Amino acid sequence: MFQQLSDFHEWFKQRAEANTYQISVVALDQLDGWGFDGDSGNLSHRSGKFFSIEGIEVATDHREVPTWSQPIILQPEIGILGILVKSFAGVPHCLMQAKMEPGNINGLQISPTVQATRSNYTRVHGGSSVPYLEHFLAPRAGRVVFDSLQSEQGSWFLNKRNRNMIVAVDDDVEVRDDFCWLSVPQLRELVHAENIVNMDSRTVLSGMSFLTGDTGGGEALHTTHELLSWFTEVKARYRLDRQVIRLSEVKDWIRSSDRISHELELFFNVIGVSVRASNREVMSWSQPMFQPTCQGVIAFVTRWIKGVRHLLVHARTEPGTGDVVEMSPTVNCSPENYRGLGRDQQPPFLDFVLAAPPERILVDVVHSEEGGRFYHAENRYQLVEADEDFPLEVPPDFVWMTVSQLTSFVPYGNHVNVGARSLLTCITRRPDLEEAA
Amino acid sequence: MFQQLSDFHEWFKQRAEANTYQISVVALDQLDGWGFDGDSGNLSHRSGKFFSIEGIEVATDHREVPTWSQPIILQPEIGILGILVKSFAGVPHCLMQAKMEPGNINGLQISPTVQATRSNYTRVHGGSSVPYLEHFLAPRAGRVVFDSLQSEQGSWFLNKRNRNMIVAVDDDVEVRDDFCWLSVPQLRELVHAENIVNMDSRTVLSGMSFLTGDTGGGEALHTTHELLSWFTEVKARYRLDRQVIRLSEVKDWIRSSDRISHELELFFNVIGVSVRASNREVMSWSQPMFQPTCQGVIAFVTRWIKGVRHLLVHARTEPGTGDVVEMSPTVNCSPENYRGLGRDQQPPFLDFVLAAPPERILVDVVHSEEGGRFYHAENRYQLVEADEDFPLEVPPDFVWMTVSQLTSFVPYGNHVNVGARSLLTCITRRPDLEEAA
Repeated sequence: MFQQLSDFHEWFKQRAEANTYQISVVALDQLDGWGFDGDSGNLSHRSGKFFSIEGIEVATDHREVPTWSQPIILQPEIGILGILVKSFAGVPHCLMQAKMEPGNINGLQISPTVQATRSNYTRVHGGSSVPYLEHFLAPRAGRVVFDSLQSEQGSWFLNKRNRNMIVAVDDDVEVRDDFCWLSVPQLRELVHAENIVNMDSRTVLSGMSFLTGDTGGGEALHTTHELLSWFTEVKARYRLDRQVIRLSEVKDWIRSSDRISHELELFFNVIGVSVRASNREVMSWSQPMFQPTCQGVIAFVTRWIKGVRHLLVHARTEPGTGDVVEMSPTVNCSPENYRGLGRDQQPPFLDFVLAAPPERILVDVVHSEEGGRFYHAENRYQLVEADEDFPLEVPPDFVWMTVSQLTSFVPYGNHVNVGARSLLTCITRRPDLEEAA
Repeated sequence: MFQQLSDFHEWFKQRAEANTYQISVVALDQLDGWGFDGDSGNLSHRSGKFFSIEGIEVATDHREVPTWSQPIILQPEIGILGILVKSFAGVPHCLMQAKMEPGNINGLQISPTVQATRSNYTRVHGGSSVPYLEHFLAPRAGRVVFDSLQSEQGSWFLNKRNRNMIVAVDDDVEVRDDFCWLSVPQLRELVHAENIVNMDSRTVLSGMSFLTGDTGGGEALHTTHELLSWFTEVKARYRLDRQVIRLSEVKDWIRSSDRISHELELFFNVIGVSVRASNREVMSWSQPMFQPTCQGVIAFVTRWIKGVRHLLVHARTEPGTGDVVEMSPTVNCSPENYRGLGRDQQPPFLDFVLAAPPERILVDVVHSEEGGRFYHAENRYQLVEADEDFPLEVPPDFVWMTVSQLTSFVPYGNHVNVGARSLLTCITRRPDLEEAA
């Protein structure tokens, strides 16, 4: 345990020095074990394991353009993202891991106690090589505080879900190398530091209601029934048709020997990465990754309504999510991808967020997305305060809800998208966020 | 309004006499407007509307057999099933319709205020021909009490969802021919009469918490968090892979000019039906329907735990539902379909339910499934009481929960399957169900 956060930073620096790794971008046709299928052009591992990159064709009446096709990651396995929690002197602490992922900006980031694939956790014979996994498999000794299937990035993954778990234990837990206990107050601080707490941690922590908490008493603008009705209405109103196609059939994308890119250099590139890491044992592998071409903006607009802080939630359609929409931040996009489109095709409220003066930006931190699939995929997470002039009347696919209302939908899965969950974790209890204006 | 239920039955009889209709079973190749596609063998309407019958190939580790293929109904549109509620002298009443559907056993059954397809309710021009639809479309005057997307029969429909709505109004409502106000106490009685309250009504009414109510105070065996964790665990544990195939590729099914049947005469037949109805205007049409080969059993086993009535809920896998499992009654099957299988392939607890003595069967009523798609599809809905000897330890895909816990999952959609919702509506508040044993 760390008395002060500076002690953690010292430990984290030591972990970075103890673990050496080397990451190089390589051509897609030089990835060891990976290859393009002769017929379909799909990119997959020769073992059939891990994931594959195929194409998807999308038709919808709820995005800036009505149809497109794009490469997408298929990884049907449900993995476990689990955080072990234990109280020390009455303060809950999370067992976190300093973990290298090839796509991380800083190499090491803080990740959950366990990140395991289904292949790991269903392995009946030979035991598991994943430390602490036994705490997350039934029958388990601990108390499950949070356990639900959550969607990941719908613009890059097709129907990808991970099992997000928080398990509380009372027994002693051995702390292995690269692991540490961080108290909930310390994590609250840390999520405001750039590129330290990884996406997997942020999504799991969104299920920890004592971390995000509620924003005071008072009455919400809408009841939970009204919010569910709004969500139902938006799902029934819009259409999302998608079809998996061959990677070779994807239009407007160009495959060279090096990489796959959009012809206008927008959205993302599919690149190859080669990794050599020493984490007690020497490991090396190579894999394809998605590399976004620019930084994204993930922002909630917030305002006081009837003395309670509300967030402006968007029902957002993405090609790879399980249903037509999920609850999303007000803005969730990479602005540069829209530079060629007309004014009426710009995402709603993007102008408002980009023009916000610094004193109106209550949360402002750059985090990266999952470093195992996405290479240097950074988003700027913001909470932008609107004043009383900001309209209460919003477009039909937006709704105002309180922080605790949005948090209450998280446990049901497939309600709150990954951007919103990640941002919820950054909207931690702070007096200046809670006190009525 | 009806002072007594006998008045309703009198009115209902009159409605049956006022509306004449003639339903005949016809050969599939004589259906007007419907035909088999030359390549795929799929059965669809020449307009491309309504629905189509195609094939599905299923692989799962969570059913009696690991793989099979079968015909299945594809109808991607989300329809509205809506009930209008208004209080008279403090008693909530539901506006119900006496509606003929070709598959109904008794011709007329009591259906929701509105059953509308998306084509109906998105028709911008020319107004709507569906009475009372305006109460269910935004912006609407009433108060939405319940509004969520609910799955339908996963063994016969692929990913079919309807929007279930209850809207409360205070204003006067004109009662048209074939419509009537039924009080909630009257509906509680009526759901125990055979084949009167149709499936669409029963599923919507399951969202009316003041109808199903909770079963007393006391403590549930598991918390809601534990139940969600159980649900997550089952979803992560089992696998359901399905693929839409051509109807002509379905194995073990035989297509004659008349109908499509399983070679062992199990499960269901696809038949043709021709309808002539006079409901003020003369209407006639023909369509294919699914006709089950035998009656099904849909039963909850119930017992008192810590002084609170609990239901034994099964996480059931069906080929057409949105996720790997949904919460289902303890038993949900047609026993005759299992006669050729070994003892270890019989559905769990089926023996227990079939052997229950009459005094242990607290609810026992035969209802039919949706008469617009299913022909004489009857299920026997039962609540079967187990005594204190019945084990609290149950297989991992079963869990005990209270009536109010199961009811609380209904509004989130895709949690509680249609059989469980229908049966929940039949488990109405009755003193003998509520008092501790």
